[in-house]
Amino acid sequence: MTTTNDLVHQLDRQHVFHSWSRQGQLDPLVIAGAEGCRMWDYAGKEYLDFSSQLVNTNIGHQHPKVIAAIKEQAETLATVAPAHANLARGEAAKRILERAPRGFSKVFFTNAGADANENAIRMARSFTGRDKILSAYRSYHGNTGSAIAATGDPRRVPNEFARGHAHFFNPYLYRSDFWASNAEEECQRALQHLRRVIECEGPEAIAAILLEPIPGTAGVLTPPPGYLRGVRELADEFGILLIFDEVMAGFGRTGRWFAFEHFDVTPDLIVFAKGVNSGYVPAGGVVVSDAISRHFDAHMFFGGLTYSGHPLAMAAIVATLDAMREEGVVENAARIGDGVLGQGLERLAHRHAIVGETRGLGVFHALELVSDRERRTPLAADAMNEIKHALLAEGMLPFVAGNRIHVVPPCIIGEDEVEQGLATLDKVLGEVSAKYAA
Amino acid sequence: MTTTNDLVHQLDRQHVFHSWSRQGQLDPLVIAGAEGCRMWDYAGKEYLDFSSQLVNTNIGHQHPKVIAAIKEQAETLATVAPAHANLARGEAAKRILERAPRGFSKVFFTNAGADANENAIRMARSFTGRDKILSAYRSYHGNTGSAIAATGDPRRVPNEFARGHAHFFNPYLYRSDFWASNAEEECQRALQHLRRVIECEGPEAIAAILLEPIPGTAGVLTPPPGYLRGVRELADEFGILLIFDEVMAGFGRTGRWFAFEHFDVTPDLIVFAKGVNSGYVPAGGVVVSDAISRHFDAHMFFGGLTYSGHPLAMAAIVATLDAMREEGVVENAARIGDGVLGQGLERLAHRHAIVGETRGLGVFHALELVSDRERRTPLAADAMNEIKHALLAEGMLPFVAGNRIHVVPPCIIGEDEVEQGLATLDKVLGEVSAKYAA
Repeated sequence: MTTTNDLVHQLDRQHVFHSWSRQGQLDPLVIAGAEGCRMWDYAGKEYLDFSSQLVNTNIGHQHPKVIAAIKEQAETLATVAPAHANLARGEAAKRILERAPRGFSKVFFTNAGADANENAIRMARSFTGRDKILSAYRSYHGNTGSAIAATGDPRRVPNEFARGHAHFFNPYLYRSDFWASNAEEECQRALQHLRRVIECEGPEAIAAILLEPIPGTAGVLTPPPGYLRGVRELADEFGILLIFDEVMAGFGRTGRWFAFEHFDVTPDLIVFAKGVNSGYVPAGGVVVSDAISRHFDAHMFFGGLTYSGHPLAMAAIVATLDAMREEGVVENAARIGDGVLGQGLERLAHRHAIVGETRGLGVFHALELVSDRERRTPLAADAMNEIKHALLAEGMLPFVAGNRIHVVPPCIIGEDEVEQGLATLDKVLGEVSAKYAA
Repeated sequence: MTTTNDLVHQLDRQHVFHSWSRQGQLDPLVIAGAEGCRMWDYAGKEYLDFSSQLVNTNIGHQHPKVIAAIKEQAETLATVAPAHANLARGEAAKRILERAPRGFSKVFFTNAGADANENAIRMARSFTGRDKILSAYRSYHGNTGSAIAATGDPRRVPNEFARGHAHFFNPYLYRSDFWASNAEEECQRALQHLRRVIECEGPEAIAAILLEPIPGTAGVLTPPPGYLRGVRELADEFGILLIFDEVMAGFGRTGRWFAFEHFDVTPDLIVFAKGVNSGYVPAGGVVVSDAISRHFDAHMFFGGLTYSGHPLAMAAIVATLDAMREEGVVENAARIGDGVLGQGLERLAHRHAIVGETRGLGVFHALELVSDRERRTPLAADAMNEIKHALLAEGMLPFVAGNRIHVVPPCIIGEDEVEQGLATLDKVLGEVSAKYAA
């Protein structure tokens, strides 16, 4: 029997329960295969992947060296208990630490970003003996108990079953929560606000501040200069740990190994997933600072999971990080971001009234769409849905979130593919701009 | 450079942060490769795997059909976003549903058992509009925020950051919490106790009772006849959902596809992981009943994760479940458990005063060790550690938990290997019995 789009679609609708949705309203796109920045269905229709799926395939689809490493590890040893020592796990940890700043000495592996945040939170609470975790309203940290309570976006609300979490407003000049009119003001006021939240929640009760250096799902919100340094200073002043969630921004996405490198600030714990092996095998983890590692030499760590340091995932990390270095993938993301992609998005913003703002770094950008530029009115959900379908029809797989298109292709993308993507965006934005922009 | 045990051990101790431990006190066993029920290190020392790692390699190590399926899927499509439809995911869901009882229609996939429990809890809360989750003190449900708060074992205590969880005592005749002297009494009193907890926590506040049909980590606690049926009746009486956590007991371990089949009781949600693909690729999930599926056709489901239905994990599920059926793996577990393993463990219990009780089903057994049979005094940690190291020295990889040896080899194990394992246990138990048993 030949596999068809219809067959796969039916099989999915009959048996598969989907994330974040009403199951009765789903019409999933069928994907048959992929390579580099392209994916296709069973009818041969091709898509340019400007989503990196869920912003995870930093190295592109089906990188031959990573696929070969997974196959080789599968032949040697697919799985092993976390208590045992395994070559792939040691090699993966070593490579991650080589890319981290000085002052980090161990890696704890998890299955993905959510449980990585869970364990960073656990370490911070245990290390400090304090209870509360502060995180930003504009954030996403995962869907498990503590991770979703740390998350600030509205998906937290129906899931708020963990205690000890408080939230603060993070900087976002385009829609300032601080009545700021420029970046300096936004930075200064956001820091003053965070200081007030710390004071009001009780500094001696706060274990950690958990923050995406560049909040991703919330809209690729590059913070104003000085903000993250100010957060680090506040954390130090009150003996609070600083956790950076680099799940989406880390491992090349911003044109650096870690997004925080742009801001010259070092956290106490680094949370990662996605880009570390492009999601070829589920993996995440926490990079642990020397001081926290030393603490847990003598103190029990009360966390663990069956697939911590899973050999297949580890082999994929080793191959991914080696290939990214050999092939200059991070440098490519930086060059594309400064060049053809960043400049191209600026041009789109000038050409189309519907674009309120474009922002980002590397291959981590967002176009914020508005029906009224003056009032910055977010483009309505129906229009966003229309854009999404128009882009798909034109052969582009977009990442649409709220009133934004996140422009997040793989870090390996070439200039030709960026130009193709920009042309598609230009065409579709032109059509909807004529229809919806004031 | 040749890989040696020393090199891998060093690499691990330098860079890898381990689960549930003091990092300074670790001396992990090095594992180089494995096949069937055997593993080996780089020096050629072989171990008979009586642990199935963390009770997950039900199909044994390196099953050729599962390895081939992982390699083939890796060559086709390693990763894809959960929103898209993918052949492997539909096929995996279909096969799981074929093995579930009538009345189940969808599968939601996660990375492992913890986030599977998280999402079952989320579904129950959303479906019922109620808040509380009841679970047993003698239980383990995972290490993420809500999963660890649902867990009843003492690892919950330093991690209790989620609200809405209450715990009850589950049956365990050997150490009865109900002053019971036989199975019937234990069953009846445990149900009366659960009814009192429901009444005192407020029936209208309770979303679900979450229970391992046979609690695993807590000691392979086969419930007395009638208990699970009584729990189902209590749940129905009060409009409470029943969630069975089949992470450890499911997919062949007890000689049935699901452990609850032994008790003729059907839950509303089935949580699985481990055995579904023997952990060759991290995977878990929730099998959703018709009624709950229908609810979420129209209502938003507030959960999700990047690697839900990951193609590599799904391909491993398809191949594992097909091979298990073709090769009669579940039947083998039943035959071995009723025969050579179950009977052999009974003989050990008669021969060695240190064995207080042996219990279990299929390849899911425990030997409970005591220094005083009359008083049932749990064997001390030092002696258990001595046993563990003696078994390792004799070439057996055991699963030691508290004062128990969990006898949990792969479901494919043959009679010869069982006999070899029993002989090793006999020798080591003889030595320690002479030293420690009263």
